[in-house]
Amino acid sequence: MTRSTPGHQPSPGAALGVHRVLEPAGVLPQAAWRLDPDSAIGPDEVRIQVERLNLDAASYRQLRESSGGTAEAMRAAVLAIVAERGKMQNPVTGSGGMLTGVVEEAGPQSPLGLAAGDRIATLVSLSLTPLAITDGLAGWDGASEQVPCAGHAILFGRSIATVLPDDLPGPLALAVLDVCGAPALTHRVVSTMTSPVVAILGAAGKSGSLSAAAARRAGARSVIGVVPTPREEAVLRRSGLADQVVLADARDPLALSGAVAGAGGPADVTVVCVDVPDCEGGAVLATAQGGTVIFFSMATSFTAAALGAEGVAADVTMLIGNGYVPGHAQMALGLIRAEPAVRAIFAGRTGTTQSVVAI
Amino acid sequence: MTRSTPGHQPSPGAALGVHRVLEPAGVLPQAAWRLDPDSAIGPDEVRIQVERLNLDAASYRQLRESSGGTAEAMRAAVLAIVAERGKMQNPVTGSGGMLTGVVEEAGPQSPLGLAAGDRIATLVSLSLTPLAITDGLAGWDGASEQVPCAGHAILFGRSIATVLPDDLPGPLALAVLDVCGAPALTHRVVSTMTSPVVAILGAAGKSGSLSAAAARRAGARSVIGVVPTPREEAVLRRSGLADQVVLADARDPLALSGAVAGAGGPADVTVVCVDVPDCEGGAVLATAQGGTVIFFSMATSFTAAALGAEGVAADVTMLIGNGYVPGHAQMALGLIRAEPAVRAIFAGRTGTTQSVVAI
Repeated sequence: MTRSTPGHQPSPGAALGVHRVLEPAGVLPQAAWRLDPDSAIGPDEVRIQVERLNLDAASYRQLRESSGGTAEAMRAAVLAIVAERGKMQNPVTGSGGMLTGVVEEAGPQSPLGLAAGDRIATLVSLSLTPLAITDGLAGWDGASEQVPCAGHAILFGRSIATVLPDDLPGPLALAVLDVCGAPALTHRVVSTMTSPVVAILGAAGKSGSLSAAAARRAGARSVIGVVPTPREEAVLRRSGLADQVVLADARDPLALSGAVAGAGGPADVTVVCVDVPDCEGGAVLATAQGGTVIFFSMATSFTAAALGAEGVAADVTMLIGNGYVPGHAQMALGLIRAEPAVRAIFAGRTGTTQSVVAI
Repeated sequence: MTRSTPGHQPSPGAALGVHRVLEPAGVLPQAAWRLDPDSAIGPDEVRIQVERLNLDAASYRQLRESSGGTAEAMRAAVLAIVAERGKMQNPVTGSGGMLTGVVEEAGPQSPLGLAAGDRIATLVSLSLTPLAITDGLAGWDGASEQVPCAGHAILFGRSIATVLPDDLPGPLALAVLDVCGAPALTHRVVSTMTSPVVAILGAAGKSGSLSAAAARRAGARSVIGVVPTPREEAVLRRSGLADQVVLADARDPLALSGAVAGAGGPADVTVVCVDVPDCEGGAVLATAQGGTVIFFSMATSFTAAALGAEGVAADVTMLIGNGYVPGHAQMALGLIRAEPAVRAIFAGRTGTTQSVVAI
């Protein structure tokens, strides 16, 4: 079932999956409108028998709000996108998610070190992963971003995947790995500073709680956790993951910056882990001159951040939250094993329906 | 004409212009749909008699392409936006530009140090500057992003403006100041590294040529200038601003990364100074592991950058190009005075019509 003779050297473009791009020609799979999810693999590709998709938080929210949220409507929406695009990339948010499954076949030149039968999670986005669904998503009730799913997916030479750990339930590992870039990059940034104050917007969420734990490990003097609802406030206080817990709407810049200032801010590092738009101005205002904002929310607007900071003469470094940092998966799994408070937050976050949901 | 009694202390929100936001309530002016451009100023505000707008490159291109580009259509498009929104923020691109004019009245509590009669440029975006136009833009032929304009604009307490230099023509100073964040941030990033290779996408443009000069001053080992057309290739070669000049379409990731690699790359720092979408993947691939991409293009997609880097396992730091860096205006004006090659590029870039135009 491999596409070309073993021994044939794949081109750099092939390692990136460019040969799977159907339209427009020449772009990378992430930027493509449509991919070819053919189950026959190239010599450096890997085919996965899919077990579960984990939709990106911004994408899941958009699908729920636009479809009405019934099981039938949610299934139809996801199936239509995958049939049309050959990948699960929400055309409105541009985001995807990731998946777990079992390796069915690994091409002889795949550098990923995977073998048939390995149970893995992909650490590249669904927005660039060729995917075909065969079960009509019959096992999904639409109430959670975790989607039981049968079908196949393709990994390229230059993809990333990790074998799922034996000691953690599959859905938990999937949820952790989905956001593992956030704690890794937070740790890296906080480590470069001397005892910074770190504010986490959406600290009672998945990426937020992991990032709070990572910030503390990396030497934060104080972690200020910002949450949108009294319920999340209670959850975060109970967890002990933040030194200060403040209740504020991250979309209200004056309220947010005032709340962070009142809790020991402005922050030297502000980490944006909420999945709603319009948090750029508040994040910038909550951050000290010379500080850094890390945007992990897929609902972030590039222009709103760039012009918003300029507009208030804010000398802040603004980072696009890259989902890849070397060692990110192991760091995040290590945090979930070592921090019962983070694990409790993950356990409590299935099918939540607040109006502002942290990632 | 001031709005409240001198001596009344403006609130932090007032310094940010929140009182000028008509809808939606509570957001910062940049995020607002509509501002109040009332000519009566508050105690910490400044009213400017406008002389000239400089539209952001991405906005200008979008207006030209969507309106057909005739003088009448261009004027109507800009007038409609300003009448509707009370500011010149292109609703499609989200971007604005900046303006020059003469200070008409400065509130007694304005911290900007301006006096009536000062000829200034605003260094905050038009996307958050209250603006009213009174001459129907009769002096604009639509063929350049510089728009002769009569009317008034408002600066807030926490705005930035600079008095225009006597020794440079007004339109040149305006064009330089419009992009002055790019060379300043490029200089800062390059300075933190030891003799890095720096690639500038759109190096024959305004922000690109300034950034190339800034990179060299900051200690770049080699500056690779990437241009989209043979005409720009000739311009850049003649300028001597780049050590290597390569012709490549920044929207074609494999072509771009191949071209940069062939010129001594991958780059330790890649600076994106083009005004077309879909350059994220190429910029990431052209950058070495551990390197940095600075996105100045207002056509940058946050999700395409974040997911694109993750999708190719690229450990690159991605910066949102903040238009504000302390000292940015003086640095850019210093470069244009000291570097005849940069000045020549600015002189040659009025009313250009290439398919890929550098900022």
